[in-house]
Amino acid sequence: MPTLVLIRHGATRWGQENRFAGWGDTPLSVAGWTEARKAAQTLRRANLEFDVAYCSRLLRARETLEAITETMAAETLPVVVDWRLNERHYGQLQEVTRPAAIAEHGNAQVVAWRRDYHAVPPLLEDDDPRWLEQVARFADIDPTRLPRGESLGDAAARVRPVFEEEIGPALKAGKRVLVVAHTSSIRGLARVIENLDDEASAAFRIATAIPRIYQLDDDLTPQSSQDLAGGGRAGVRYWANKLKPRGLGRF
Amino acid sequence: MPTLVLIRHGATRWGQENRFAGWGDTPLSVAGWTEARKAAQTLRRANLEFDVAYCSRLLRARETLEAITETMAAETLPVVVDWRLNERHYGQLQEVTRPAAIAEHGNAQVVAWRRDYHAVPPLLEDDDPRWLEQVARFADIDPTRLPRGESLGDAAARVRPVFEEEIGPALKAGKRVLVVAHTSSIRGLARVIENLDDEASAAFRIATAIPRIYQLDDDLTPQSSQDLAGGGRAGVRYWANKLKPRGLGRF
Repeated sequence: MPTLVLIRHGATRWGQENRFAGWGDTPLSVAGWTEARKAAQTLRRANLEFDVAYCSRLLRARETLEAITETMAAETLPVVVDWRLNERHYGQLQEVTRPAAIAEHGNAQVVAWRRDYHAVPPLLEDDDPRWLEQVARFADIDPTRLPRGESLGDAAARVRPVFEEEIGPALKAGKRVLVVAHTSSIRGLARVIENLDDEASAAFRIATAIPRIYQLDDDLTPQSSQDLAGGGRAGVRYWANKLKPRGLGRF
Repeated sequence: MPTLVLIRHGATRWGQENRFAGWGDTPLSVAGWTEARKAAQTLRRANLEFDVAYCSRLLRARETLEAITETMAAETLPVVVDWRLNERHYGQLQEVTRPAAIAEHGNAQVVAWRRDYHAVPPLLEDDDPRWLEQVARFADIDPTRLPRGESLGDAAARVRPVFEEEIGPALKAGKRVLVVAHTSSIRGLARVIENLDDEASAAFRIATAIPRIYQLDDDLTPQSSQDLAGGGRAGVRYWANKLKPRGLGRF
């Protein structure tokens, strides 16, 4: 039976600071590293193994996957990094704190940008340093394909082909698939898998670093879903020290 | 004839801000991405290929290697990430701007920390958030092995076994080796390869993203060294777009 595990990256430094992250490259916080390693221990205890991992191209997802593969001693797991799994693009809100955004735009507008399925935040302009940096980081992508700000629906539309063209066929080929991504991109995947409408999509939530496990039939219709909260007592350091004497063996 | 290429990461955001980086995870700046891709084009034009890459565990080196493998269409190059190739640890100066460090400690002291081979900056203490974050990021390493601040000599001593145990044997086995690292860790490698004394080590410089190529004999004695400045006219975007329709294929 095809198995798919979705994990949202761990807590981040900008999250601590209450900043909109979007496509900004904030690293995991201390708590984020810890919960990512705990998620991996939970996967181990559940005897889950993977044949391929898909990961967004943002640092916080890559660090989370790094912590997971380290802790599971799965450094040779094939990894496909795909920018289309990135978080919803928050446009001009990127890197701004919530209080500052509310002070500038008003609470109702900020809530609408966060929750309405079709609300688009103000777009990054050509001379915005955040846009210039994005173009440099994603220089291998045609810049006309890169978002400058997205609604939840825009992000879901960008994510859909990753499932249809990549993850779905891998599952049908019998591969056990791990995906490390973000609230909005995981929401986009869940929308396809669970056949959610706009309202249910907007209401979909996933906690940081709590694996969500789908068992699917051969047509990729979900037979069960399960959020795998941890709760074991094994210390993070114990596993980590035991498994990795040095280095990472990959990026 | 064994070939070894050393590359220092591209320019960074903290570099722009004149901050001591050390083990802090500053990303490449826009200029840094551009010069990393230019370095890869230079390597291509020189018909250099690699069998293995060694990379520090800091973001700026990993991003530089990512830009290089993308641009060279070498995404399947085996990569060994090793924390011992990290930059010299700048202790309590990490993330501090140079003017702020000079204001607090005086210019002579800051110059000494930067230039004297044996000067150690103030060490990070147990409750310093930078130390807590470092322990979380490097949880797979015994914390007693992790530096809290290093002299140039300390960093060189940490780097030496990477050459003696890893890079040297790979070269002797006929592998063409690329190393992406930092001023101080590359200095540590050059010290071993070129048999430099303390004074020559401290004076050793390497520009960002300019490949330094060693041709070595079978005993790993250097027969030639060359800094490969670019100067070609091929645009970064041209190569990058041509080579990578999407994603990275790895971390």
